[in-house]
Amino acid sequence: MNFASDNTAPIAPEILAALGAANEGPAPAYGGDELTARLNSRLEEVFERPCHFALVATGSAANGIALSLASPPYGQVLCHEASHITLEEGGAPEFYTGGAKLSGVPGAQGKLTAQGLQAAIDAHPPLPPHVMPRSVLSLTQATELGTVYTAGELAALTAWARSQVLKVHMDGARFANAVVSTGASAAELSWKAGIDLLSFGATKNGALAAELLLVFDDALAEGLAPRQKRAGHLWSKQRYLAAQMLAYLEDDLWLRLAAHANAQAQRLSKGLAALPGVTLEAPTEANEVFVHLPVPLQEALRGAGATFYPWHAPGLNPSETRVRLVTHHATSPEDVEAFLALARKSV
Amino acid sequence: MNFASDNTAPIAPEILAALGAANEGPAPAYGGDELTARLNSRLEEVFERPCHFALVATGSAANGIALSLASPPYGQVLCHEASHITLEEGGAPEFYTGGAKLSGVPGAQGKLTAQGLQAAIDAHPPLPPHVMPRSVLSLTQATELGTVYTAGELAALTAWARSQVLKVHMDGARFANAVVSTGASAAELSWKAGIDLLSFGATKNGALAAELLLVFDDALAEGLAPRQKRAGHLWSKQRYLAAQMLAYLEDDLWLRLAAHANAQAQRLSKGLAALPGVTLEAPTEANEVFVHLPVPLQEALRGAGATFYPWHAPGLNPSETRVRLVTHHATSPEDVEAFLALARKSV
Amino acid sequence: MNFASDNTAPIAPEILAALGAANEGPAPAYGGDELTARLNSRLEEVFERPCHFALVATGSAANGIALSLASPPYGQVLCHEASHITLEEGGAPEFYTGGAKLSGVPGAQGKLTAQGLQAAIDAHPPLPPHVMPRSVLSLTQATELGTVYTAGELAALTAWARSQVLKVHMDGARFANAVVSTGASAAELSWKAGIDLLSFGATKNGALAAELLLVFDDALAEGLAPRQKRAGHLWSKQRYLAAQMLAYLEDDLWLRLAAHANAQAQRLSKGLAALPGVTLEAPTEANEVFVHLPVPLQEALRGAGATFYPWHAPGLNPSETRVRLVTHHATSPEDVEAFLALARKSV
Amino acid sequence: MNFASDNTAPIAPEILAALGAANEGPAPAYGGDELTARLNSRLEEVFERPCHFALVATGSAANGIALSLASPPYGQVLCHEASHITLEEGGAPEFYTGGAKLSGVPGAQGKLTAQGLQAAIDAHPPLPPHVMPRSVLSLTQATELGTVYTAGELAALTAWARSQVLKVHMDGARFANAVVSTGASAAELSWKAGIDLLSFGATKNGALAAELLLVFDDALAEGLAPRQKRAGHLWSKQRYLAAQMLAYLEDDLWLRLAAHANAQAQRLSKGLAALPGVTLEAPTEANEVFVHLPVPLQEALRGAGATFYPWHAPGLNPSETRVRLVTHHATSPEDVEAFLALARKSV
Repeated sequence: MNFASDNTAPIAPEILAALGAANEGPAPAYGGDELTARLNSRLEEVFERPCHFALVATGSAANGIALSLASPPYGQVLCHEASHITLEEGGAPEFYTGGAKLSGVPGAQGKLTAQGLQAAIDAHPPLPPHVMPRSVLSLTQATELGTVYTAGELAALTAWARSQVLKVHMDGARFANAVVSTGASAAELSWKAGIDLLSFGATKNGALAAELLLVFDDALAEGLAPRQKRAGHLWSKQRYLAAQMLAYLEDDLWLRLAAHANAQAQRLSKGLAALPGVTLEAPTEANEVFVHLPVPLQEALRGAGATFYPWHAPGLNPSETRVRLVTHHATSPEDVEAFLALARKSV
Repeated sequence: MNFASDNTAPIAPEILAALGAANEGPAPAYGGDELTARLNSRLEEVFERPCHFALVATGSAANGIALSLASPPYGQVLCHEASHITLEEGGAPEFYTGGAKLSGVPGAQGKLTAQGLQAAIDAHPPLPPHVMPRSVLSLTQATELGTVYTAGELAALTAWARSQVLKVHMDGARFANAVVSTGASAAELSWKAGIDLLSFGATKNGALAAELLLVFDDALAEGLAPRQKRAGHLWSKQRYLAAQMLAYLEDDLWLRLAAHANAQAQRLSKGLAALPGVTLEAPTEANEVFVHLPVPLQEALRGAGATFYPWHAPGLNPSETRVRLVTHHATSPEDVEAFLALARKSV
Repeated sequence: MNFASDNTAPIAPEILAALGAANEGPAPAYGGDELTARLNSRLEEVFERPCHFALVATGSAANGIALSLASPPYGQVLCHEASHITLEEGGAPEFYTGGAKLSGVPGAQGKLTAQGLQAAIDAHPPLPPHVMPRSVLSLTQATELGTVYTAGELAALTAWARSQVLKVHMDGARFANAVVSTGASAAELSWKAGIDLLSFGATKNGALAAELLLVFDDALAEGLAPRQKRAGHLWSKQRYLAAQMLAYLEDDLWLRLAAHANAQAQRLSKGLAALPGVTLEAPTEANEVFVHLPVPLQEALRGAGATFYPWHAPGLNPSETRVRLVTHHATSPEDVEAFLALARKSV
Repeated sequence: MNFASDNTAPIAPEILAALGAANEGPAPAYGGDELTARLNSRLEEVFERPCHFALVATGSAANGIALSLASPPYGQVLCHEASHITLEEGGAPEFYTGGAKLSGVPGAQGKLTAQGLQAAIDAHPPLPPHVMPRSVLSLTQATELGTVYTAGELAALTAWARSQVLKVHMDGARFANAVVSTGASAAELSWKAGIDLLSFGATKNGALAAELLLVFDDALAEGLAPRQKRAGHLWSKQRYLAAQMLAYLEDDLWLRLAAHANAQAQRLSKGLAALPGVTLEAPTEANEVFVHLPVPLQEALRGAGATFYPWHAPGLNPSETRVRLVTHHATSPEDVEAFLALARKSV
């Protein structure tokens, strides 16, 4: 009954097997290998167009490099006030950009709107060179509150962004869960909806450590390779990143893993919402359940061995009852049912 | 007959197996896992003292973080003029330190001396705040010319460094090869010889992607975790870095792998040096052979399928005959012999 | 009737004269001059202790260098949400610190309180290394809403800061106005109240361009000279900065200039507050009046040649009636009276 | 007999007078003033075209901002190995660019050549992303050895730079002296010769503290204002920078001041070169004399009250006899003659 994080999950067997299969003899270093070439082709299929890309080991690296490509060091990056990039990446975006400012904007249920963004600008209007110019809009998909932007919502946001001459980045640490949730394609939820740069995560969804930074705007790609290298994120043995990502995309493994995780979250969410005194903080649309559990119930569950964390974030009222439950590719339905049975008994 | 780089090598079977063994159930993220705790203990044995450490995927990351701990952004890092950190890391040290200057100093056979370092300072004496203060001495072990610093040589260099109030960093991408080569212990070649920070490499010697940054000076360790995090080098699933490193250190695997690589380099070096018209650029003391091969011989070898690169570096006379041959844990003696037989035939 | 900004004011005659007087023959460059030595002595008198200091031309430079001394690049600087350092310095603090995050905290009438600061931390508690550690508290004196912290208020804030292991910086662009307003001494409003670094402004109060960064905490002063130099803020002909600052401090000129400016603001504030439909946004305690003027009254005043700006800031309700009126050392009582007469006639 | 530096000189009377004349009533801040507008027009005359420009107080600021406009943070700036930007600006270029590397290249008599630059690249050829890409060529005019590039020499260098896709920056701290020395126009020695960005100095030639950064390449100018602001180099009372620069350019004052300084250097150089045992290190073409004086002669001169410094630099053999003598706008012919008389007597 471990619902602490999708970061605690093991590697999906298919991906581990791919690492073993990649381990044959010598291979050119730094991306000159055959698996990287094959990944390039596979990405073209999945995203329905050629892409510039970089393979890195963490989401913070992908996000940091992305923002450094899209923002000058004197720019402001607009993001949700509860976004991971501004709250929990230890200042990676500031480091990578060389000093850009992340400006948190409120938005209900973890989601930004054009109206909310415009209000933030109106409250502190452009005044060059005193006010740092807004340079980037960064969206998280799925959001930090377990909700998902539809393709239509993204299109509205990116249209607004373009009206403000902003580039648009998507932190897609849980992009797979959003694709599954919306039923839209990878292309529809990214460049077709106006996204310029996508941090496409695999680690939370079954990889050992593999994230793809995809750059859809040719003009932004020039600094990609040198910025990856100077950050120490160009692996010499890149075949082992490519192998993970290829296996992830092969036979739609990524979608099957995310579908499993999402289904377990649904099961958990519905089961909990049916209990008296339990309310959801936001609709469960991906693999995270944000829910208010009475404190005695929390204690009973933890006492019985369940693992999960309380949740606080800017924009949410302080509350001791709010917790986050995360499912993943290896969450077993039995575990979820055991947790729910325990909850029903303890409530 | 691939002698291009130790970066082209596959993962050592023991390390790959350790990844599989680590893949059981959930584990706390970000270093809270059991393997990281075990690594901590194992390091204390290998280095004969407690160490601060960070696990990262690349040597450039380890070097960059290390230098950012030891140098203020307005400092100068003294290093060999042919050192990897100043020539081929894409500016990682400058990025991580926030603008420190790497000052290349000449030295025969890839090695710095206190005399040479002092001469560099005398040629451009301290003049604060106009001249950036020297802050760090960075040494490469094994060196960029395949030679190795003995414990005594290191002690002399670090004594000089201390007289100049410099911290001392060691880029130990091939530290294992140096330990095997000198017969000294890990402790004797690091903190006992006055090293403050060690980038202890495993990737070139059989890991998938794993490097350890070891900090021996407590005062320098404060920024270690936040700097690793902001650079996107803190893995969520750190157990898979710890597993590699543990397997590497278990039963002295790291020394066995390096001993194999060094032995193949010796075989190669001796075989080539015996040929007419062939001369070594520097003694072969680790797993790299820097040797002058007549151009027709190079062409014959490449024509027969051998892979290796020409070598240029500051401080070396331009020459078309100089090449680098690298061996590694998976280099087979048969491959070396085949290469030598070919060379004997073609010379 | 120009109340646009104290930045529009000319140089006080005494300071201009001092520049001329300093223009005799050669003088050692970079602070080796006699005037800098005399300034050092004079500062010791005014602040009742020895100080580390740097002379620069702008407040943004003083603030930026100060914050870079007090915060690591991965730290968070707590400041008022309407503070100049986070809103209107074009990202100078981020640039100087190498990527620190400025976190705006609300507070009534431009002033922070320990309670408000603690609430901001509680809403997003420390979680190293994910959450950037809070490193500095920066206070503006006089505040961005024309109010002034008393010595007692400062002591309470710095006591709280010390309990959180924060360094305390004061942006004293209008420090002189606060000293005059409170009647406290320079020492009482700075280091005696727990301030570690003070940006002590002269430019808004009669200098050509001169700001002093004072560092009261010895441990923070090590990087002062190299950081000033690398930012291009060490003047070769420093005598002309020292001359301004000496004249400013001589015979308490700084206090006389500020007293004049404050008195004109009082006159303006009282005169306006007596008018029907006019309300102050905050009490007038220094040389700025934040006041709500009906839009037709604003138009009448501007139509008659008066200059002043509307005022918006985070934490204030959007309003078209809010304006800022700034007085300075050269504001004539006649100008103020003319403005008030016009206002009385037009209301 | 002070020949220590042109930084020790006072303000030229015309420039000091202009400061007083600018001190009338209020003026818009941050460059909205009338003097800045007039400077814009005057620059268009002097440089025979419209220019983007920024007014700052120091040459390090002008150079730093310029290089940050022309180089990405992962770029290499090629410059003379003895150049001020790499040796004595405390790391300003590294700070402003966010980590670019300054690569020193040798060249006789302080001057770079296309041949020497090409040789430096050939010794360490491009290897992206490992080797930082060369991004900028920075030239010093007059050079650090008191010599001057002719328009033809500049054209050859910038043609080579363009063949390597490099931007070209000129550190013109002594640009006026070079214009006078060559007889070429300001335009001929800058953009007409292929210069993209010019740090045009006035401080060493009679200003209080005033340097102009001129950007001739429109594509590079976008970041000019925000980078100036974030560095704290945008003066609120910019009229006092504009006033200095206007007076400097009025009636060719800048050329008259430089002509005087150059003439005194000629007088000094010829007088010294005629003495037995005295040799010039480089031809005297601007306002600096680099000359070998026997140590006893140096001692005699210093004993008699003369001030001047020994000179060391990369690329020059260590020598105790090499000194630098600098003249400036306020150097009196009588002082020079007194020095020469003393030298003749003491030799």
